[in-house]
Amino acid sequence: MTITLYSLCGADAARPFSPHCWKVVMALRHKGLSFEERPLAFTVIPTVENGASKTVPVLRDGQELISDSFRIAQYLEEAYPDAPSLFGGRGGVAAARLVEGYSLHVVHSVITRILLIDIHDMLAPADQAYFRKSREERLGKSFEEMAAGRDAAIAALPAALQPLRHTLAFQSYVGGTTPLFGDYILFGALQWLRVTTGSIHLPGDDPVSLWFDRCLGLYDGAARAVA
Amino acid sequence: MTITLYSLCGADAARPFSPHCWKVVMALRHKGLSFEERPLAFTVIPTVENGASKTVPVLRDGQELISDSFRIAQYLEEAYPDAPSLFGGRGGVAAARLVEGYSLHVVHSVITRILLIDIHDMLAPADQAYFRKSREERLGKSFEEMAAGRDAAIAALPAALQPLRHTLAFQSYVGGTTPLFGDYILFGALQWLRVTTGSIHLPGDDPVSLWFDRCLGLYDGAARAVA
Repeated sequence: MTITLYSLCGADAARPFSPHCWKVVMALRHKGLSFEERPLAFTVIPTVENGASKTVPVLRDGQELISDSFRIAQYLEEAYPDAPSLFGGRGGVAAARLVEGYSLHVVHSVITRILLIDIHDMLAPADQAYFRKSREERLGKSFEEMAAGRDAAIAALPAALQPLRHTLAFQSYVGGTTPLFGDYILFGALQWLRVTTGSIHLPGDDPVSLWFDRCLGLYDGAARAVA
Repeated sequence: MTITLYSLCGADAARPFSPHCWKVVMALRHKGLSFEERPLAFTVIPTVENGASKTVPVLRDGQELISDSFRIAQYLEEAYPDAPSLFGGRGGVAAARLVEGYSLHVVHSVITRILLIDIHDMLAPADQAYFRKSREERLGKSFEEMAAGRDAAIAALPAALQPLRHTLAFQSYVGGTTPLFGDYILFGALQWLRVTTGSIHLPGDDPVSLWFDRCLGLYDGAARAVA
């Protein structure tokens, strides 16, 4: 039985970039599961699996169809209990929601202002129109206004990552001595930035850069191969 | 054998306010341990336990003397394994470091700008001089400059708490259905604000306010009794 992961791409299907999909890619590899990744353009998402979800990731595992990266991780943890744990116990599951909140509301809010134009430029024309309209409505600013804040956002990124840097002063991963889903949540954010802009915009000797590089090296460097 | 917790107070020993000490107070109650709290003024800290630590909390448990709130929580988890867990497994311990990083570098950085003058005004004269000098050196600004930013900091507080609010959309506590040390880390920050300024400066119907109120009600409302 094949697991299918529907993820997100621009005009080039070889460069999936969604942070939420990257969390699931890493979670599937963590569990040692083989899967087929099917990157979709924004406007194609509503046409697969009978329009089950307006967003990706969506995971098809036999009869099961699950959307939302966190729910997928919880599903994998329950469905594959003998594979390495993604959470390290019930306290880990619960705290991963705070990691998600930090990633979304502190890290993503800065990264979004860096990479918006880069994502736009990766898309096919039909998706460009959808993307510009939906994001300008969501963020309440024109792309041109957001692009003007790009340098300030790059300058703000190190401070937004200080909670992760603090964690890495005590341990190699958010998960402790080995990575857990909390790592993949934050990895997804920086991989999104790397795939779309070509850089994570941090000094190479920043503990966050060193951690990110360790994550890129996991599972035979599969995440590093996408660039 | 009595456990002694050295904590922090101003001129009134009945109003201990340190966020880090509150984490430990809640952790001790979580473990069901009886303890004697000995609140100290800033300038008294170096005179107890042979000057073992320049900061509180410091925990004396028989032959053991431990400083730093996170290390104390880890000690309690290991020394009292049969009492309710503070972390809910190894993933929970590891992720609590990210909760700590978020609290210190996102939440505290806003709260500090709200309560600095309030803390100063709670202290005895000798401690006021120490506090002003050490904080002005640490923060690189005069108290007067920081006071001018108080209203802006109050306005920034809801956004700084968005990661916690996100978490509470899925579960009652950072720890899940019941509180864990991650809750006490963030509770400590807001209790610090409440004890020193008389308010947490959030709307009463904010999910963060409702969670904070649940925390105040834990252990027979012991934390609510300090105000």
